Amino acid sequence: MDRVFVVGVGMTKIGRFYEKHAKELFAEALWKAIDDAGGVKPQAIVVGNMTSSVLMQQDSLGALVADYAGFRGVPAFKVEAACGSGGVALYTGFALVKSGVADVVAVGGVEKLTEANTETVTRALAQAADADYEVFYGVTFTGLNAMISRLYMNTFNYTDEDLSLWPLKMHEYGSYNPYAQLPRKTTLEEILNSPLIADPIRLFHAAPIGDGAAVVLLVRGEEKAREVGKITGRDTLVELSTVSVATDSVDMSTRRDLLTMESTVLASRSALAKAGLTIKDIDYVELHDAFHITAYASLEDLGFAPKGMAVKLFKEGKFQKGDKPEVNFSGGLKARGHPVGATGVYQAAEAVMQLRGDFPGFKASSPETALIHNIGGVSTIAAVAVFKRVK
Amino acid sequence: MDRVFVVGVGMTKIGRFYEKHAKELFAEALWKAIDDAGGVKPQAIVVGNMTSSVLMQQDSLGALVADYAGFRGVPAFKVEAACGSGGVALYTGFALVKSGVADVVAVGGVEKLTEANTETVTRALAQAADADYEVFYGVTFTGLNAMISRLYMNTFNYTDEDLSLWPLKMHEYGSYNPYAQLPRKTTLEEILNSPLIADPIRLFHAAPIGDGAAVVLLVRGEEKAREVGKITGRDTLVELSTVSVATDSVDMSTRRDLLTMESTVLASRSALAKAGLTIKDIDYVELHDAFHITAYASLEDLGFAPKGMAVKLFKEGKFQKGDKPEVNFSGGLKARGHPVGATGVYQAAEAVMQLRGDFPGFKASSPETALIHNIGGVSTIAAVAVFKRVK
Repeated sequence: MDRVFVVGVGMTKIGRFYEKHAKELFAEALWKAIDDAGGVKPQAIVVGNMTSSVLMQQDSLGALVADYAGFRGVPAFKVEAACGSGGVALYTGFALVKSGVADVVAVGGVEKLTEANTETVTRALAQAADADYEVFYGVTFTGLNAMISRLYMNTFNYTDEDLSLWPLKMHEYGSYNPYAQLPRKTTLEEILNSPLIADPIRLFHAAPIGDGAAVVLLVRGEEKAREVGKITGRDTLVELSTVSVATDSVDMSTRRDLLTMESTVLASRSALAKAGLTIKDIDYVELHDAFHITAYASLEDLGFAPKGMAVKLFKEGKFQKGDKPEVNFSGGLKARGHPVGATGVYQAAEAVMQLRGDFPGFKASSPETALIHNIGGVSTIAAVAVFKRVK
Repeated sequence: MDRVFVVGVGMTKIGRFYEKHAKELFAEALWKAIDDAGGVKPQAIVVGNMTSSVLMQQDSLGALVADYAGFRGVPAFKVEAACGSGGVALYTGFALVKSGVADVVAVGGVEKLTEANTETVTRALAQAADADYEVFYGVTFTGLNAMISRLYMNTFNYTDEDLSLWPLKMHEYGSYNPYAQLPRKTTLEEILNSPLIADPIRLFHAAPIGDGAAVVLLVRGEEKAREVGKITGRDTLVELSTVSVATDSVDMSTRRDLLTMESTVLASRSALAKAGLTIKDIDYVELHDAFHITAYASLEDLGFAPKGMAVKLFKEGKFQKGDKPEVNFSGGLKARGHPVGATGVYQAAEAVMQLRGDFPGFKASSPETALIHNIGGVSTIAAVAVFKRVK
């Protein structure tokens, strides 16, 4: 079976773009990716998006963005898996290319959140939770994560200060990332004094609300990838080895263990096995840190830390510059930002650039393998992809 | 590259199911498909759905239905392309199986429309049109189709009576279909006296609002399909030869010709070419007749009738029992019903049963090839799939 390669990436800066429609953000990212790939154009477009139906009253988003970007006619559609939509778009695009259904596929994600007021966007994001068994009773998405945070802190004896080290570091990384929504450093004091959203989660423990779009261009076969490399002058190829997706319940009340994201465990194991790697082989990671707790739980459930140990290890300097793996040098969802349906595609673009060595922010130590982890809900769905540098 | 076969199909009756959640409808269709396939279980689930975000305030629909049906853990996600969501789910599932990403994939569609009042559901369905350039100005989805109907009638000199022959015939076919929402015959008089929705479209010219779910189970390779055949006792295999998708603009004002659905033309040509067939080779068709005009335009744009001739040919008895192709013996969207995101999967299930010879309604004349045609918006997106009977 032919292998799949990423030949181009494109991102918009994440921010508040009142003046831009989602289709404009998407077109910007798509054409950046096409330019990055020396002009290779997509034969199909997969769009990860969560909220267009509710916040823009717009379905048919795939066709809309394709037409606006100049690709009327091309197969184009939306995939939705809440905040994991981008990762699932990558899974879909990987299959389209690998199967030969299309030779070149643009996998994109786009989200436009900032035009809605806080209540509206909070309700829209809560649709990742169970409408009947959770949201109906008034819980927000931050509320669900707050309960898990408290349980984690109580179970493993961590303090607010301990958990706050993650966002502190993310803001440092993000300060180097020209695409980041919050490209500035912060302090532990600022984090701990920021407003409580849902105890114990404070404003600076959570990803911001932002608009943005990202695209990666996939092609089938090493020959085609080398051909593109000749045009772009890149010797280094990046292979998308595999994408695995797994699910869990939507409502958390029926889970076996609130402190284990089983879909993340499943997707990580599956992706590593299909890529012929073990967790120790991974050099670089972009993981889904929508809240501080999500970062630590992800490190544990992906297999990088024993349960309950991620905070301690991070405090000791693990997962940082020079370690294996290095994690979230983009600034993560916390500082790079989290335009929900686009986040998984941002992660893919960042992983590819770190492998190529041309990420314009905080640079990884010449990684050869990278893993990305994107979830929807409290890991109701998890997508894990593995990338390899190929000389 | 391995071929893709359909080894099981399942459908719910279409109707008003106030007492059932979408996940219950989906699980019913999925388990019928599993039973039909002798117990083969999916390794991935693709869900075509349009309105869950707006009418159910529920995202993460893929994981929700998978978990409820007993498949927690399995990759499961939603694809959205308005009323063409089911066809696009089939496209996605086809790629997942063909690529080897999953060996057995359940492609399903589900829609729950009847709990909302008329205004709410009309607004939800209008999201298939352009929010900024069409819906903002007050047009409904029926309104857009009414304008095309009028243009078609004026251009080709047809009357209300002429166009009403389609729904008349569909109700006759539908009266034999146990899954149909409106399994009863009608009369030309009843059609022409039914209330005007948007001149010239009357109630009986349009598909009803309904709830329903359908699933088809895809497997990779003839060997696996034969294996299932041994269990189910079926000698006849049904191959899903190909699925093609194409797009057009969302807003109709920028189209070259309002009477040509270019995405349907593109998808039909592509699907036939990939299947190694011409339009003359197709024995059986299920096409997307959301309104009377849509049926005739589809016959023309798929390639079965010259432009402007479909009504005349249908009046002369073409596309009916004993002709080639035979069309919409399910009763079509008009009488079988149109649970929007599920419609494309109903069509697939019906085509498969007609090829196997076990469709429980109005039977085709032993077809060997079948084509289905599912669109979103006014063919903003079109999915065309070709199935073959394999001895």
